[in-house]
Amino acid sequence: MNGVEALTRRVRALEDRAEIAELLASFGPTVDSLAGSNLVSMWTSGGEYRVGEEFAFRGAELAGLTELPGHQAYVAAGCGHVLSAPQIRLDGDSATAVNYSMVVLREGDRWVVERLSANAWTLERTGDGWRVRHRENRLLDGGEAATEIIGTLVRG
Amino acid sequence: MNGVEALTRRVRALEDRAEIAELLASFGPTVDSLAGSNLVSMWTSGGEYRVGEEFAFRGAELAGLTELPGHQAYVAAGCGHVLSAPQIRLDGDSATAVNYSMVVLREGDRWVVERLSANAWTLERTGDGWRVRHRENRLLDGGEAATEIIGTLVRG
Amino acid sequence: MNGVEALTRRVRALEDRAEIAELLASFGPTVDSLAGSNLVSMWTSGGEYRVGEEFAFRGAELAGLTELPGHQAYVAAGCGHVLSAPQIRLDGDSATAVNYSMVVLREGDRWVVERLSANAWTLERTGDGWRVRHRENRLLDGGEAATEIIGTLVRG
Repeated sequence: MNGVEALTRRVRALEDRAEIAELLASFGPTVDSLAGSNLVSMWTSGGEYRVGEEFAFRGAELAGLTELPGHQAYVAAGCGHVLSAPQIRLDGDSATAVNYSMVVLREGDRWVVERLSANAWTLERTGDGWRVRHRENRLLDGGEAATEIIGTLVRG
Repeated sequence: MNGVEALTRRVRALEDRAEIAELLASFGPTVDSLAGSNLVSMWTSGGEYRVGEEFAFRGAELAGLTELPGHQAYVAAGCGHVLSAPQIRLDGDSATAVNYSMVVLREGDRWVVERLSANAWTLERTGDGWRVRHRENRLLDGGEAATEIIGTLVRG
Repeated sequence: MNGVEALTRRVRALEDRAEIAELLASFGPTVDSLAGSNLVSMWTSGGEYRVGEEFAFRGAELAGLTELPGHQAYVAAGCGHVLSAPQIRLDGDSATAVNYSMVVLREGDRWVVERLSANAWTLERTGDGWRVRHRENRLLDGGEAATEIIGTLVRG
């Protein structure tokens, strides 16, 4: 492999990171602007989003997330789905990412942290760029499930 | 275009993203350390910062932001202007970015989210690097203005 | 220096930034999953973490951070150490970074911001990649110490 080829690989890895960070950064703006159909295209066609034991959305079902009465009430009150900058591990055409998410919700003249969750994302490079294959979201409520999710990339 | 030229363009795009992310990440530290004059150089000479319907600062006026009694009271109480990792869209010598910002304010032995806002930034490459040409900040209070701002890069 | 060499330097600077951002993004997941021994390897062998006037951990002592009763109580209640995307300044084999950190803690069916701090990190390139040589964490409580820390990279 010559110098340019080696450098091209390094640039591609940096582009992968940037694209994945950008994809994750689009989640909040997508749901907080009620753009459910755009949510579908963030995931692979059969991709899944699991929210604790409460909800699971797969593929086209993701469009329904922003139609949930609970979500509509959040947006009507004033709300931000604020995600932290992720840890990202690349592995060829797959990747894993971990971050925190907060639902910050207006209440009177203040905002409260209505939900704080651990997120583990598995991503895949498709013909249309990086997409989410699976996202697991768990409330950081002291239970083991969330503690394990937030530690996904720590031990391995 | 040969391989090195093509690669150089890709590297430049990555550098643009990194520089814009860095510029946005400097906003909170600048206002929370009361460095109003440094705020001026984050914007283009005629650049503007609109905070809802309440305030608009243009160019050198930005130095006055940290002199506002409300801002001084924030810093005296203990305060962080915490911005989320942005979505960034590059378009040659211009760029658009969207993120959340929170004013996290001390109250007793806790901190509260005093403000949660949607931000749309338009940026421009100048001879001194990337600068903010316009920033629109709107409270996420359930009104349509903030919902539109947070969705700026979602739909197109 | 030919084109490829110059480009290689630029790519390396981008990789440095990405690796430092990744290192900082791993702090929260490490402590919130009680992986104290992994914390040790984030720092250089003699590296230090100062938390206000309260605590200082050096080298192998860092493993003890997650054993502190206060930290264990946080995790048992449900907790996230949420760090903001950092400002990063590279200087060869050293770097400085500044960001905010929040301890977001469950209380009943909500989460509260139990701590909001300013952080100044000094980092160093080692044979095993970038490591933290020093981190200073100070509550943003209106005192001058935190205001200075958050302004570390603002003034130049």
